[in-house]
Amino acid sequence: MCGVFGIFNHPEAANLSYLGLHALQHRGQESAGVVSCDKDTLHAVRKMGLVSDIFTERRLARLPGKLAIGHVRYTTSGGSLPKNIQPLTAEYREGAVAIAHNGNLVNAEQLRVELEADGAIFASNSDTEVIIQLLARRNDPDIVTRLRSALSRVRGAYSLVMIADGKLIAVRDPHGFRPLVLGRMKGQPDTYVVASETCAFDLIAAERIRDIEPGEILVIGGDEIRSVMVPRVARRACIFEHVYFARPDSSLDDVSVYNARIKMGRQLALESPVDADVVIPVPDSGVVAAMGYAHQSGLPFEMGLIRNHYVGRTFIEPKDSIRHFGVKLKLNPVPGLLTGKRVVVVDDSIVRGTTSNKIVKMLRDAGAAEIHVRVSSPPINGPCFYGIDTPNRDELVASRKSPDEVAKAIGADSVAHLSAEGLLASVGAGGDETYCTACFTGEYPLRITRQPPRRQLRLVEV
Amino acid sequence: MCGVFGIFNHPEAANLSYLGLHALQHRGQESAGVVSCDKDTLHAVRKMGLVSDIFTERRLARLPGKLAIGHVRYTTSGGSLPKNIQPLTAEYREGAVAIAHNGNLVNAEQLRVELEADGAIFASNSDTEVIIQLLARRNDPDIVTRLRSALSRVRGAYSLVMIADGKLIAVRDPHGFRPLVLGRMKGQPDTYVVASETCAFDLIAAERIRDIEPGEILVIGGDEIRSVMVPRVARRACIFEHVYFARPDSSLDDVSVYNARIKMGRQLALESPVDADVVIPVPDSGVVAAMGYAHQSGLPFEMGLIRNHYVGRTFIEPKDSIRHFGVKLKLNPVPGLLTGKRVVVVDDSIVRGTTSNKIVKMLRDAGAAEIHVRVSSPPINGPCFYGIDTPNRDELVASRKSPDEVAKAIGADSVAHLSAEGLLASVGAGGDETYCTACFTGEYPLRITRQPPRRQLRLVEV
Amino acid sequence: MCGVFGIFNHPEAANLSYLGLHALQHRGQESAGVVSCDKDTLHAVRKMGLVSDIFTERRLARLPGKLAIGHVRYTTSGGSLPKNIQPLTAEYREGAVAIAHNGNLVNAEQLRVELEADGAIFASNSDTEVIIQLLARRNDPDIVTRLRSALSRVRGAYSLVMIADGKLIAVRDPHGFRPLVLGRMKGQPDTYVVASETCAFDLIAAERIRDIEPGEILVIGGDEIRSVMVPRVARRACIFEHVYFARPDSSLDDVSVYNARIKMGRQLALESPVDADVVIPVPDSGVVAAMGYAHQSGLPFEMGLIRNHYVGRTFIEPKDSIRHFGVKLKLNPVPGLLTGKRVVVVDDSIVRGTTSNKIVKMLRDAGAAEIHVRVSSPPINGPCFYGIDTPNRDELVASRKSPDEVAKAIGADSVAHLSAEGLLASVGAGGDETYCTACFTGEYPLRITRQPPRRQLRLVEV
Amino acid sequence: MCGVFGIFNHPEAANLSYLGLHALQHRGQESAGVVSCDKDTLHAVRKMGLVSDIFTERRLARLPGKLAIGHVRYTTSGGSLPKNIQPLTAEYREGAVAIAHNGNLVNAEQLRVELEADGAIFASNSDTEVIIQLLARRNDPDIVTRLRSALSRVRGAYSLVMIADGKLIAVRDPHGFRPLVLGRMKGQPDTYVVASETCAFDLIAAERIRDIEPGEILVIGGDEIRSVMVPRVARRACIFEHVYFARPDSSLDDVSVYNARIKMGRQLALESPVDADVVIPVPDSGVVAAMGYAHQSGLPFEMGLIRNHYVGRTFIEPKDSIRHFGVKLKLNPVPGLLTGKRVVVVDDSIVRGTTSNKIVKMLRDAGAAEIHVRVSSPPINGPCFYGIDTPNRDELVASRKSPDEVAKAIGADSVAHLSAEGLLASVGAGGDETYCTACFTGEYPLRITRQPPRRQLRLVEV
Repeated sequence: MCGVFGIFNHPEAANLSYLGLHALQHRGQESAGVVSCDKDTLHAVRKMGLVSDIFTERRLARLPGKLAIGHVRYTTSGGSLPKNIQPLTAEYREGAVAIAHNGNLVNAEQLRVELEADGAIFASNSDTEVIIQLLARRNDPDIVTRLRSALSRVRGAYSLVMIADGKLIAVRDPHGFRPLVLGRMKGQPDTYVVASETCAFDLIAAERIRDIEPGEILVIGGDEIRSVMVPRVARRACIFEHVYFARPDSSLDDVSVYNARIKMGRQLALESPVDADVVIPVPDSGVVAAMGYAHQSGLPFEMGLIRNHYVGRTFIEPKDSIRHFGVKLKLNPVPGLLTGKRVVVVDDSIVRGTTSNKIVKMLRDAGAAEIHVRVSSPPINGPCFYGIDTPNRDELVASRKSPDEVAKAIGADSVAHLSAEGLLASVGAGGDETYCTACFTGEYPLRITRQPPRRQLRLVEV
Repeated sequence: MCGVFGIFNHPEAANLSYLGLHALQHRGQESAGVVSCDKDTLHAVRKMGLVSDIFTERRLARLPGKLAIGHVRYTTSGGSLPKNIQPLTAEYREGAVAIAHNGNLVNAEQLRVELEADGAIFASNSDTEVIIQLLARRNDPDIVTRLRSALSRVRGAYSLVMIADGKLIAVRDPHGFRPLVLGRMKGQPDTYVVASETCAFDLIAAERIRDIEPGEILVIGGDEIRSVMVPRVARRACIFEHVYFARPDSSLDDVSVYNARIKMGRQLALESPVDADVVIPVPDSGVVAAMGYAHQSGLPFEMGLIRNHYVGRTFIEPKDSIRHFGVKLKLNPVPGLLTGKRVVVVDDSIVRGTTSNKIVKMLRDAGAAEIHVRVSSPPINGPCFYGIDTPNRDELVASRKSPDEVAKAIGADSVAHLSAEGLLASVGAGGDETYCTACFTGEYPLRITRQPPRRQLRLVEV
Repeated sequence: MCGVFGIFNHPEAANLSYLGLHALQHRGQESAGVVSCDKDTLHAVRKMGLVSDIFTERRLARLPGKLAIGHVRYTTSGGSLPKNIQPLTAEYREGAVAIAHNGNLVNAEQLRVELEADGAIFASNSDTEVIIQLLARRNDPDIVTRLRSALSRVRGAYSLVMIADGKLIAVRDPHGFRPLVLGRMKGQPDTYVVASETCAFDLIAAERIRDIEPGEILVIGGDEIRSVMVPRVARRACIFEHVYFARPDSSLDDVSVYNARIKMGRQLALESPVDADVVIPVPDSGVVAAMGYAHQSGLPFEMGLIRNHYVGRTFIEPKDSIRHFGVKLKLNPVPGLLTGKRVVVVDDSIVRGTTSNKIVKMLRDAGAAEIHVRVSSPPINGPCFYGIDTPNRDELVASRKSPDEVAKAIGADSVAHLSAEGLLASVGAGGDETYCTACFTGEYPLRITRQPPRRQLRLVEV
Repeated sequence: MCGVFGIFNHPEAANLSYLGLHALQHRGQESAGVVSCDKDTLHAVRKMGLVSDIFTERRLARLPGKLAIGHVRYTTSGGSLPKNIQPLTAEYREGAVAIAHNGNLVNAEQLRVELEADGAIFASNSDTEVIIQLLARRNDPDIVTRLRSALSRVRGAYSLVMIADGKLIAVRDPHGFRPLVLGRMKGQPDTYVVASETCAFDLIAAERIRDIEPGEILVIGGDEIRSVMVPRVARRACIFEHVYFARPDSSLDDVSVYNARIKMGRQLALESPVDADVVIPVPDSGVVAAMGYAHQSGLPFEMGLIRNHYVGRTFIEPKDSIRHFGVKLKLNPVPGLLTGKRVVVVDDSIVRGTTSNKIVKMLRDAGAAEIHVRVSSPPINGPCFYGIDTPNRDELVASRKSPDEVAKAIGADSVAHLSAEGLLASVGAGGDETYCTACFTGEYPLRITRQPPRRQLRLVEV
């Protein structure tokens, strides 16, 4: 998971990029960067940490120019290294280029071996550098032609925002795995913005124009906006953006995330009702679906678990056993509220089951008489190759167990998931609007190409 | 507002203090500190910033001993200076002493002048240092006698946690303005903890024993626990702890904050009903009361405003006018959700009115047809002298305007507040359980003693 | 050892203090601080580290005002703690006061016990705080009277530069142990400066007026300069300032350090001649005396040991034995230069003998045929109580051994010291100009008053 | 100017690299780095700052392995950017490679254009990356063959220390512009070291074996040491290493720098005698030559200028004019020493003349009656293309003026330079031992190939 942002033709391009990244901070908290373009120079600030800590007034003042792009990162490919912080930059035949990438390539390893065999040297271990290497090896005079040629070699998920040739470029892969939306500053018709989610527009008073289309290369610069489409393939937007990645105040491909989650909760109540006393969410991502469940079921809704939002980078666990400690740092039940109650607890997903297990125990300790876990997405059976950090199949509890077995494993009285059909209906899927559901259906649009491991020197920066 | 914590007789005293402070982080985000006591040495870590950033594994490892106290600070008295970070320490006749203080003294200035006239020098400008100075001037052999004598000079709000003579000491002022609660580690009957709120106990698997009583000096150490009471005066716990300071999963003086807020919302719906379509909270502090309002009124509850929890230290505003920018960093309406709706928005208080004004405009922009602001506390007419950072009377919008005038000023269709009686009923006040309501009734239990300003050199650390 | 600086009536007071401290950096590299006074506010920057690292342009810009004092510190009393970094500040009856102190008090412990018995609390463990406490306990209206009263209680070495009542105050103890000199900016007759050494004046284009007299309290401020003398006692300036503390381009009490060292070397050659081939110094402090020795003896002078000036804070020794490693970081013999030569190596002093031992071995490894150590000061037999960090008597090699035994211990062919008479003659001592020679004569002008250790809580800041 | 270091087969490889860099710190103070090799992983620490500040115990502990290289940098090519800190690393077909480079390539720009035209992307703007790119484009199985092929394209000055294929590689360009010497740990015959200067060996108790030959590629690893020579061209070692870059305790190509400087001073006294009273050096680099001048002339030698070694990174000049301020931070005359004297001041070179001008004024202010500047190298007429940061020809005072005109310009009574023949004789040049004297003779062994500037995006990291 990552978030990207870009802005063209605004005197405060870096400041607005910083604000845009702030709104996208939920998409990645490990590192952030902004690259601005002023005349013939790119200026970059890239650091580990949160957006609001990195971008001091002094640093922002060193990012001049009316064109800028930004990136927030939650490590997926490459490691957690300074050299991998995006936007990635390099210098090639046409000068410096900067690129911010959300998504994962499935053939990056293979392309890297081919490129190295052809004499390429790599400065990072991010798959994004492969895109720059491919771009550098094209000598077409036009950036669009070069990009098309380079991207024709690449397979996988990529929503890109780039600075090249003094232009802002936005690209979305042919399947449209990751979101990318185009907007414009209100009252400034020539000032364009692109972002992973519309919530970034709200903060800076921009308005949504439309989504970048799957397979679209959009170049904003000079005196024109130029859109080029690569041959279309089946649309496969990630449905988990709606389930829990995106902010509920965003809309993705013109679907309101909030509404989608309300519908997931309502549908879940229809599919898996419970004779219970109260509905509570696992905050924050489960709140809206839990409200939908409560609406539909007629059960009262309570904030039975309180979330501490101050969880930071470093945490030292006490050595002697405090039960379900990791979850306690974030969540605490309201004492007395659930005593003797039959509780429906709504979560967005179950991955390994360890967190659910701790929550169930926590609720049991808080006096709940029955605990029924309701999940607003189908069981996850397989990994994601397109940009989400899921564990191996073996660690996915739903790949090995039935819902009843999971209930037993996590100590709940029952567990039920929203059906795939119910989920698709909740996001209004239909006709052209098909989603990637690979992680629960196993139908992968693109398979990953792994290379046999090479015995070679690796590099670690301290 | 500040939070305090203390623990006696645990091999991981500093680690548990750090966790306790983490649970109390909402009470102060400016700075934090832990002082541990190992044999004849106090060890201190005190820094600006958040608990989870300050207490790295390396720093915690330098805090040995089985006795520790901690403090999180939101500046009230003194300035935002390193030298004022608590726990405050000093060396006096009996060796080093450490003290963590929640609350404000009303006669600190006067005492400081007297102490200086008697030859005292001050290292901080915190009112807490006055307490240490008074303590140092007593030569009674016993710490309890010394403390009683020293505190007999002091008036105001003070919930104190101290290390002196190798003992853990907890003190609450005779009015009991600020909360302070005593607990014990589960399964470890000789390991005591004290904290501002019970939520700190939940995280470390401690259980509440009882509140420290107003006027109580509790000394834990040696082989005994010793409790001494100063002559009792009328109890005056701050009712705003229930309204918005405390976490909803805490209980204060044995009253559940969550329940109290639900009742406030219900009572508010009874007192000030609206013919509306939807109830939304101003998150996070307004959520529970809004749920109570929705329950009572039968109106649907929606999370119409989404809160971004990543707001950090440094924020650069864009220069060209983005409307109601400050609030936008934290809150964003869900697009489409409120269009054409008559909206009840529940907030916990209105102080200056500027934030309410921005929220109303934000909701209006989001398409709300009517906006009715309902506030789960009475209008604030005066400042707090006991530890809460309220502005001058002139800046308090309710001290100058009627609710209708406030509604007009902030652009709402109506504004209504919970009555003082309704609020007191919601927290179950009655008999002995009287609260401080000075900021809305003007009945101050203790008046502040101000000194005429002295023309003297002040000190600023860069 | 420490260095102090002060300036009155200059628009760039903090900048010039910073430059003055830069010139005095050799007197202390552990920490540095500047306090400026602007109208009714003192502004302080105090940090661990070197002057040029601490005082960034940004920090200096936060030190407004035309009056400033500064301090560089090499730990002597108190520990290496942030709270002990000078100038020390405190607030007392008359407002904030700042004080920079070079020297050690001999009755600080006793005074501290008395003050604590009288109710004083201490924020540091520096003996300088005792002076502020005493000052605060006087209620005379006039700063000079207060200072005289306070200082009448204090015994020991103190060259002080203070800001109090908006004035610059310079004080030197009655014995004049540590240097302190008064100057004036060239062409700006109303702009006064004080510093530990005249080299600080050279850098900022100030000119020396005269030394602050032993026992003098000089107050510069308002419209006047006021000098008050306490009853005079025997002058006892530290002779080791001439031997190695002071920079050779300084003059102390109107004696040129460079000339004094040349004379020491010449006298040493007269007293302890050697039949040798070459004279080399232990750089940097031995260079000038070695030149004097070479001049007088007619032997050639060579820079046989090269010094690396980049020695920083952190040094990791290799685990396997590298001979005389510590000294090697600083000194390396010129290969070939000394092969087969009879070498006179001139050093300023021998303390424990360990460094001399390593140097002798290093020279032996470099091929020297004979090594004759000549020391430009008498053998050190006892500790210094007045501000110099000498080890206990037991560790002083000269207190236990004769020169011949020392020669044997350090592996030299011979060792000889300059006589006390020779040293006194070299600095032109005579008549009133008597020096403190306690560390080699054992005649201590003031004995230290130690308190029995108290079993009490101490404080350590991490 | 830079310094390089490498060590093979030592359990404390990183620690010894750090010590080696400490001894080479005079060759570059801007940044430093160490890369160690442990099994199949390179570990890197690279930072701006001084060696002793960068390499904390914690960082060194993260550099495991028995093979390591290091670099200290004084910016010459590329800019002062984090991405240019060496050792440079990249990953290519054969895995990670690390390279530390002293010297400048003269055809780097041209090669970069060619490489970019062929699809290369650049992560730094250091000319060293060109070498890695060339290496990556060779697919010979053997590292030596690859290196020979790659280096055959490169022209200029390069003393390289590399890690590739788990081996330590040392390379010196065919002219041998920059020094590079091979050694071995004493008593550990299989533990090899390479360094820019022998002083690095002294610190770690290594002994010099021989210089790396111009045109030699030496590979240490596996079970063998393999040396390959490229066709030899005329040897052109930089003579300024002897004049002022190298430490006087180093020997270069088996010539003692100390002896060379003594001879330069003696020869200078023979060529340009003066009827004067005293000889003083400009410390530190002029000290040894000044001693030679004094020996030869019979004039007394004095340390008339005292150097402050604490000059750090940040310096704020006072706004009102203090004469010759920049030089004053470093140098101060000993008051009184030169009054009325005819002074010979010996410096190693005159570049722009501005520093000399300030020194002459400073000596004049100190009372010197006559000032005769004697320079231990010929007038510099042209820039260096091989790794030394000299200004443009226009700024070189000697390229525009005769010695008499220079004397007038800088305010001296006379100026004289050592002759080229005298300099060459001083370093024992003769036969094969020819030196590069391009900067004063204009006879450049290799001309720089500049590319016309390209209008392209550049990158700046903040």
